[in-house]
Amino acid sequence: MKVDGKHYRSIWFNEEAGCAQIIDQRWLPHEFRVVDLETREDFAASIRDMWVRGAPLIGATAAFAISAEMKRDPSDANLDEAWDELHATRPTAINLRWALNEMRNTLRPLPEAERAEAAHKRALEVNDEDVETNRMIGVHGLEIIRKIAAKKKPGEVVNILTHCNAGWLATVDWGTATSPMYHAQAAGIPIHIWVDETRPRNQGALLTSWEMNSHDIPHHLIVDNAGGHLMQHGQVDLVIVGTDRTTAHGDVCNKIGTYLKALAAYDNNVPFYVALPSPTIDWTVKDGVTEIPIEERDGEEVTHVQGKLPDGSIGSVQISPDGTPGGNPAFDVTPRRLITGLITERGVCEPSPEGLAAMFPDRVLD
Amino acid sequence: MKVDGKHYRSIWFNEEAGCAQIIDQRWLPHEFRVVDLETREDFAASIRDMWVRGAPLIGATAAFAISAEMKRDPSDANLDEAWDELHATRPTAINLRWALNEMRNTLRPLPEAERAEAAHKRALEVNDEDVETNRMIGVHGLEIIRKIAAKKKPGEVVNILTHCNAGWLATVDWGTATSPMYHAQAAGIPIHIWVDETRPRNQGALLTSWEMNSHDIPHHLIVDNAGGHLMQHGQVDLVIVGTDRTTAHGDVCNKIGTYLKALAAYDNNVPFYVALPSPTIDWTVKDGVTEIPIEERDGEEVTHVQGKLPDGSIGSVQISPDGTPGGNPAFDVTPRRLITGLITERGVCEPSPEGLAAMFPDRVLD
Repeated sequence: MKVDGKHYRSIWFNEEAGCAQIIDQRWLPHEFRVVDLETREDFAASIRDMWVRGAPLIGATAAFAISAEMKRDPSDANLDEAWDELHATRPTAINLRWALNEMRNTLRPLPEAERAEAAHKRALEVNDEDVETNRMIGVHGLEIIRKIAAKKKPGEVVNILTHCNAGWLATVDWGTATSPMYHAQAAGIPIHIWVDETRPRNQGALLTSWEMNSHDIPHHLIVDNAGGHLMQHGQVDLVIVGTDRTTAHGDVCNKIGTYLKALAAYDNNVPFYVALPSPTIDWTVKDGVTEIPIEERDGEEVTHVQGKLPDGSIGSVQISPDGTPGGNPAFDVTPRRLITGLITERGVCEPSPEGLAAMFPDRVLD
Repeated sequence: MKVDGKHYRSIWFNEEAGCAQIIDQRWLPHEFRVVDLETREDFAASIRDMWVRGAPLIGATAAFAISAEMKRDPSDANLDEAWDELHATRPTAINLRWALNEMRNTLRPLPEAERAEAAHKRALEVNDEDVETNRMIGVHGLEIIRKIAAKKKPGEVVNILTHCNAGWLATVDWGTATSPMYHAQAAGIPIHIWVDETRPRNQGALLTSWEMNSHDIPHHLIVDNAGGHLMQHGQVDLVIVGTDRTTAHGDVCNKIGTYLKALAAYDNNVPFYVALPSPTIDWTVKDGVTEIPIEERDGEEVTHVQGKLPDGSIGSVQISPDGTPGGNPAFDVTPRRLITGLITERGVCEPSPEGLAAMFPDRVLD
């Protein structure tokens, strides 16, 4: 999407530099930095230390990582080593495993001499497929927004609430939850976005706000506490969020706090949609609450907040007294009973075993 | 309660200094500062600029303000002027109006020569009554905790979640939501507190954590997003929050985000109690969601976060990109259907017109 009017993806192969490049998201929204990824350690660090984040983008980055490795050493041993090292960077990210398997399955049958070229080609395809997947999520999600707009007076704004950043920065392009928003804007439907700040890491404040600014989409940043009140007072027409993992039964694991917004949406009859590319469906898991282990992250993410200091530098402030520990579960699970629908690249389906199986008969397990 | 082992109230009259003194809460938890309140402007600023905050403490401060004014000029004109100026500092605070009326009603019938002494006496009483009220909330709330503890194995911890600061810092002493916790600790019941940070002003992180630290009560600071996940996984036995205003029908207006925690508690069968001194009941209001206007505060409270910088000074960081506006509703309303019970100084009652009327037959309006 656009940065200062120029089109970017969040990751791309720069032919001139001969390597993949990314937007280093640790500095957004305060600084826009582009970084070369060349060595295996570059790629591993970029995923582990969250220079890139978001399930689809992590997968796309891993695809380029395998491609770079095949140029250096196309042996089976190196392929396996790279697979292991990259997979260990964010072991719970289902798209990471998906992309690594996709690359290995493509390359393993080939003679070593053909692997570098094949890997490069497949990595580019994985990236392009992600873009197309997210574009289609937007096409299907647009119809939901269009129906809501049709019930309003002409020109009246559709208010959409989103949590975390399931934006183009979390994918290769378009985003998942944001793709319907970008499509609505292009279709001339007036929208306004309530952007949850998404503590503790503030992905909404830092990234989603920046995306909305870059595209001149009207929005307000709100604290994670505010959504329920806004829904009680008719100020939210629709919630769209992304997901890190969706179960075969339709439960949605996403950034901590998503469940609270789903409860509020349900309590106020506000439609609650989850936008997801099909690789985030984990067909092996049924009940999200009991089966998905939730990552507990460093408590310092809770006790400290990073941002821009008055002198323009990036720094952090401690909000709690010395001695108070932070508790930091990173995700929660929204049970399918609270979800209106799943927006996939193939269309919108019910969050149920039957709904998902009907949409993906080629993927569902017995 | 205790600060470094020494007993403090949040406001008191210092005989030696001849004036009221407060803990200036703007600097907590990073610095402990005591401030003299002498002039009318001192008092007005202390309420308006939140050196003191919390419904009961605001009332207690206003009582001392009227007392100081009567020493200076006990005329009717000055009494009315002081009433108006103080009331304007936080016009939606119901306890402020209650305390100002209480003082004026006491003083108006008296000859001017007697007003200074009577005002001082009544202000001290208003303060002592608040302490006793909150102590009794703790006595009644303790029984709720005791019953939960009785169902656990001996020594097993009772996990209590709280939002914002309804602690002793929000009252003259004991606190409302925290009073049952302090009583449980004194009774030897092992407790652990999940402290919601309570964005945007972080009263949980700054104040409740500091109270828990000062009393060696085990606790974790969590983001406002985390409570639902903890409840889904059986890690919360009980929620206790305070309230800024409770309607005659039992709806509770409290810090933004309270409603989301009530929804999660209801969804997971976790008891959700509201602790309140009876002056926070607004007998003129029935339906909280439609009748209570919600204060919209400065968006900069959302886009910026204050805390302690690495060099120990207090500063703030901007978390959003330039150009993104903040939306900042300060309170929300929790409908009574989500509330298990109201803990008042007279006992625990149902959140309903009948429950409140039975507990306060002397206060209820027709």
